[in-house]
Amino acid sequence: MKRMKMADWLWGIVVFIGAASLSAAGSAGAAGGVSDATEACIGCHAMVTPGIVADWKKSRHAGVTFDEALKKPGLERRVSAAEAPQGIGETTVGCAECHTANADSHKDSFEHNGYSVHVVVTPRDCAGCHPVEVDEYGRNLMANAYTNLKGNGVFQTLMDSANAVQTFDGAAAHLGAVDPLTEADSCLYCHGTEVVVKEIRARETAMGEMAFPVLTGWPNAGVGRINPDGSAGSCSACHMRHGFSIAVARKPATCSECHKGPDVPAYKVYSVSRHGNLYTSLKDKWDFDAVPWAVGKDFTAPTCAACHASLVVTEEGEVLVKRTHQMNDRSGWRLFGVVYAHAHPKSADTTVIRNKAGLPLPTELTGEPAAEYLIDAGEQQARRATMQGLCLTCHSRQWVDGHYQKIDKAVETTNAMTLAATQVLLKAWETGAAKGLAQNDSIFNEAIEKMWVEEWLFFANSTRFASAMGGADYGVFAEGRWYLSKNLQQMVDWLHFLMAAKDS
Amino acid sequence: MKRMKMADWLWGIVVFIGAASLSAAGSAGAAGGVSDATEACIGCHAMVTPGIVADWKKSRHAGVTFDEALKKPGLERRVSAAEAPQGIGETTVGCAECHTANADSHKDSFEHNGYSVHVVVTPRDCAGCHPVEVDEYGRNLMANAYTNLKGNGVFQTLMDSANAVQTFDGAAAHLGAVDPLTEADSCLYCHGTEVVVKEIRARETAMGEMAFPVLTGWPNAGVGRINPDGSAGSCSACHMRHGFSIAVARKPATCSECHKGPDVPAYKVYSVSRHGNLYTSLKDKWDFDAVPWAVGKDFTAPTCAACHASLVVTEEGEVLVKRTHQMNDRSGWRLFGVVYAHAHPKSADTTVIRNKAGLPLPTELTGEPAAEYLIDAGEQQARRATMQGLCLTCHSRQWVDGHYQKIDKAVETTNAMTLAATQVLLKAWETGAAKGLAQNDSIFNEAIEKMWVEEWLFFANSTRFASAMGGADYGVFAEGRWYLSKNLQQMVDWLHFLMAAKDS
Amino acid sequence: MKRMKMADWLWGIVVFIGAASLSAAGSAGAAGGVSDATEACIGCHAMVTPGIVADWKKSRHAGVTFDEALKKPGLERRVSAAEAPQGIGETTVGCAECHTANADSHKDSFEHNGYSVHVVVTPRDCAGCHPVEVDEYGRNLMANAYTNLKGNGVFQTLMDSANAVQTFDGAAAHLGAVDPLTEADSCLYCHGTEVVVKEIRARETAMGEMAFPVLTGWPNAGVGRINPDGSAGSCSACHMRHGFSIAVARKPATCSECHKGPDVPAYKVYSVSRHGNLYTSLKDKWDFDAVPWAVGKDFTAPTCAACHASLVVTEEGEVLVKRTHQMNDRSGWRLFGVVYAHAHPKSADTTVIRNKAGLPLPTELTGEPAAEYLIDAGEQQARRATMQGLCLTCHSRQWVDGHYQKIDKAVETTNAMTLAATQVLLKAWETGAAKGLAQNDSIFNEAIEKMWVEEWLFFANSTRFASAMGGADYGVFAEGRWYLSKNLQQMVDWLHFLMAAKDS
Repeated sequence: MKRMKMADWLWGIVVFIGAASLSAAGSAGAAGGVSDATEACIGCHAMVTPGIVADWKKSRHAGVTFDEALKKPGLERRVSAAEAPQGIGETTVGCAECHTANADSHKDSFEHNGYSVHVVVTPRDCAGCHPVEVDEYGRNLMANAYTNLKGNGVFQTLMDSANAVQTFDGAAAHLGAVDPLTEADSCLYCHGTEVVVKEIRARETAMGEMAFPVLTGWPNAGVGRINPDGSAGSCSACHMRHGFSIAVARKPATCSECHKGPDVPAYKVYSVSRHGNLYTSLKDKWDFDAVPWAVGKDFTAPTCAACHASLVVTEEGEVLVKRTHQMNDRSGWRLFGVVYAHAHPKSADTTVIRNKAGLPLPTELTGEPAAEYLIDAGEQQARRATMQGLCLTCHSRQWVDGHYQKIDKAVETTNAMTLAATQVLLKAWETGAAKGLAQNDSIFNEAIEKMWVEEWLFFANSTRFASAMGGADYGVFAEGRWYLSKNLQQMVDWLHFLMAAKDS
Repeated sequence: MKRMKMADWLWGIVVFIGAASLSAAGSAGAAGGVSDATEACIGCHAMVTPGIVADWKKSRHAGVTFDEALKKPGLERRVSAAEAPQGIGETTVGCAECHTANADSHKDSFEHNGYSVHVVVTPRDCAGCHPVEVDEYGRNLMANAYTNLKGNGVFQTLMDSANAVQTFDGAAAHLGAVDPLTEADSCLYCHGTEVVVKEIRARETAMGEMAFPVLTGWPNAGVGRINPDGSAGSCSACHMRHGFSIAVARKPATCSECHKGPDVPAYKVYSVSRHGNLYTSLKDKWDFDAVPWAVGKDFTAPTCAACHASLVVTEEGEVLVKRTHQMNDRSGWRLFGVVYAHAHPKSADTTVIRNKAGLPLPTELTGEPAAEYLIDAGEQQARRATMQGLCLTCHSRQWVDGHYQKIDKAVETTNAMTLAATQVLLKAWETGAAKGLAQNDSIFNEAIEKMWVEEWLFFANSTRFASAMGGADYGVFAEGRWYLSKNLQQMVDWLHFLMAAKDS
Repeated sequence: MKRMKMADWLWGIVVFIGAASLSAAGSAGAAGGVSDATEACIGCHAMVTPGIVADWKKSRHAGVTFDEALKKPGLERRVSAAEAPQGIGETTVGCAECHTANADSHKDSFEHNGYSVHVVVTPRDCAGCHPVEVDEYGRNLMANAYTNLKGNGVFQTLMDSANAVQTFDGAAAHLGAVDPLTEADSCLYCHGTEVVVKEIRARETAMGEMAFPVLTGWPNAGVGRINPDGSAGSCSACHMRHGFSIAVARKPATCSECHKGPDVPAYKVYSVSRHGNLYTSLKDKWDFDAVPWAVGKDFTAPTCAACHASLVVTEEGEVLVKRTHQMNDRSGWRLFGVVYAHAHPKSADTTVIRNKAGLPLPTELTGEPAAEYLIDAGEQQARRATMQGLCLTCHSRQWVDGHYQKIDKAVETTNAMTLAATQVLLKAWETGAAKGLAQNDSIFNEAIEKMWVEEWLFFANSTRFASAMGGADYGVFAEGRWYLSKNLQQMVDWLHFLMAAKDS
């Protein structure tokens, strides 16, 4: 068979190409070079998936051993484990070090050329060298992004309202069932899928017949992905494969992958903010690889990471803010994705929340917070103070206070506008112009309901983001106060049109 | 006359400036230097249009002769002619080599300082050195972009509905005639105009009185421009004047010039995709000039060109995909610009298509494909396999299969949503709430018709793009599934409002 | 008290850090080094606001004295004063040179460690070294951006319609009062606030208790900011603190901070124009610091600044356009922010304008220009000729003429579409479907009025921008002709829906 012949031929030349690849990787400065297991991987994969190997060869993982990484002084250290995970330490971090780690707990492990390999590398695997970061990330709303969405009946209904195929019966359009492929291609791209092993199946490859696990919910690199080892999250959402570069994670384009749409326009707001403009104009002169990251020296205006995640120091090495992967521990307000802005939830798993109406929502429909589930004013203030420690590097106390006054006012006024829109919706339900909770109908499927969703999910959110990040241009006409106001007026008219059409 | 004096003075110093310019161009490494004819051009134009000359001097054209270019080994060669066009070979490619080529077939040729010069350089002119690329481009839908639009009665009506000035008579707004300048400034900017020579007219210049052709449809660099030599297209749409750089053509900004709006948001989707984010973060370290283009070495994530046009090889020089200027020969589905997604048309000239209803459309109004005019499933699969050959460089077989399953599902569900919207529109026509084909009225001029257009031209397209390119953020809330769903519900309500208003 | 101890400790080490900072600044090449006063500032602020000091240390201000700057030959000179302002000349331009300038005229001056310091540096302060630029800027509409908005009753009403919190009474939504913090966070972010000194108040700092002025309208860097010294404007709107780099001002990201939204999408249009695409693809090879700025050599496609502000020369040093900070002296048409496009106003203070109806608007509601307040056709032509002098560097006369024909047509057709939309609105007022001037009601608060605003403020503007800057993709489907047409049709239907709802 022709295919098998090619396979034989390919096996015959892997030694040469593998050796060439390893030599290149070795020259990146590794003390110990790659492990035998990784050498075996590269033997074939330099040819089968050359892009992956080439990308990895340029990475820090390919050039440094754990033991070397551990020798770096305090703030410069990029690993947080006190000692190397079993079997790692004197070799660089290659294919096998991650794809064979914790093999027993991985339902996606399979026998592959003598190794027990798994496809999906998880935060639990990364924790071997980076346990502190993984632990912090567990307290991040993002790590719970799958559960907080799919495990919340209200938000599942919102998802369905966007993802379901509809049919028109001559008078109304009705939602059908939602296909899992559509969910995976839509909301769950960012929130994460549940990756499930269906079976192990053999198929032809360039190397002959081989067996692989068949996965559903794959491919996916969403931040709250449920992994075959039971863990949640995907470090490669931001530290992209197979370079895993800190520089990439620090650049706003990375965050933009899930924070650009009108529901969460952080990137768009940043890109019209002064910080964003300085980044765009000056980034070529900045050092995105330095650890720790020195403001003034390595960069002169913050990126997303600088404010929300990075360890930032002065030129003299004084710590301004500590590194965090919790992300919301420098912010008092939860600004987006919810009907009303409110204090951050205590638990990153928000499915535990119940408001007075018994719904899994952090506020009532009137905006009143479900206070027992939310951080208190003291904790809000403490988180704000952490962020301000960074602001004050380049801004005076008065400047910073004036800025935060405007944020608080934006929270107040956008919540008030959301309340007015909610009252229009309640009137629509009350008059029978639309069907809501009382009629046991989805609260997201009809046009006027979708206009209500936009009032908070798009326009109130955007206005708050624009205020918080100083991107006023976005918060006025782009998706902010102009539409917050126009959409409300249109909702009122639409309500009257619905009532008139019902009567006619 | 003062002007003539200045002209005399200018003629007097051209020798000096021309010489300086040529010396700079020569130093770019040309074996043979510029031709006598080009030297004459530069003599004046270094002063009259210094920006053009400066741009060209930095180009490969200014530094290499055809004969040198031909000596490059196979994959590195940038010319595809077996031998130099008449008169070219030992000199670099300057003004005269293009602007006097094929002078006889150019209706825009005019006598200019002893040379027969034409303004509009065409694919036929470029074919002297690059015949394979020009031939491939002839099979590209883009080369037919003028004809496929202006030669299709349905699309001409859609154009008019956007471009016509309207007047309000107190009850309704009516479309007036469309000015050719408006069309050229609107749809035809990208699709291309028809460039017609009206006359040759003399006017004053800095060099004294000179005669030039007067052109309509000019300036324009649209991809399907109808040229004064009868050819179609404009190579400089992507290989921009006067650097004609392959690096520029490989960068997404170039494609964005016509692929960014909501009707064809490829650039916006790319910019929130993982590929786009890696490009943005890492492009400074990539080599956009290398031919062939080695994945992993020259770049580590694809740009538009990598997937749809470029010759891509492995670090070891193995060909992953061959160069193409047909563009759609790596894609099975035609995703945008049409009511329903469908298999690509066999002929790049789509005006030959007739559906069962006799309209020049590739599907019925119900979505059923006009199959005899479209490629079959086998050809779809073959084109897909070509693209996947590139995907597999960095992704596993399972990864790629999972990705394509989602694309196919997106095609299916967006076509279903378009069908529902179409049924709402048919109901509007049937009930007299709007006027359509049966009333011999434009199907694009009324508000509810325009809502229907957005259902497919904006939201279904965008959802499919987001799926195909992994830019989910755009396909959910930006212009994707959320609006696909909301717009349909609004259409249903609008239909009822129209009926109520009619009754009242 | 712990805080005071820290203060003592801090005062103790400022000498060391200050000295280190100054040495770094000195090494940037200053002949005279920093002044004693600036040395005192840096002593503390290198520690208190290290980001500011680090940013400034990289600036030209930190490395050059006025006297050195004055020695540069003509076109290369970056200062326009004939001699140094009092006390400046032999030292570099540091903290004190700006923050203590003109102390007497600054209401925000306060005693600070022995110096009379002010927080808000104003154009009048910058005029010490840059008087010509400040003078030109005074003739810029932007310098009057606060007054032209807040001092015009019509525009104040438009602002309120977007910024006011609304309440729903069960039938209609009503506008409440607007909070000054909201205005500052919205329109006035770009237009500028009025910065007012409320009091001088003491508070604890890291250095012990100190007194500072308490300002309202702060922070703000809007282009028309009313400053505590009575001047208008903020140079740091574009020349951002504390680098004040000409390179930053020349990059489009800077302009995008206030010119990106749908009301003034200049940046978005640029980014899909050929110029913008060349900028994006090639900017890494351009020199944004060179003065004067040589087309072809320093850059090969214009940025915003090149066309509207910069001194641009040929490679040989011939002046193509002179530097200007008036901005509109190269443009004949005023394209945006107004109901109809019209010739630019004679006075940068547009509050002096009165149309025939007595309103402070440059046209009637029908589009007829308030001609006596506007530049005449001759001046329009002269401004256009200035711009074209730059176009002609890279484009032929015929190319340029063809381009401008399309602009003039776009002005004509978008004004006609605005007129049609205005007639629909007048009909709504006439029939009582909406309440307007005759009912003494805001003309911007109801849904149909907001649709009318979008017709001109978003869609007509965008179409004109797209035409003027060659960004057709934005002017067709993004926010241009498609919506200009669709919005009008929706207004007509909405009018009928309103009438039907009223009747029902």
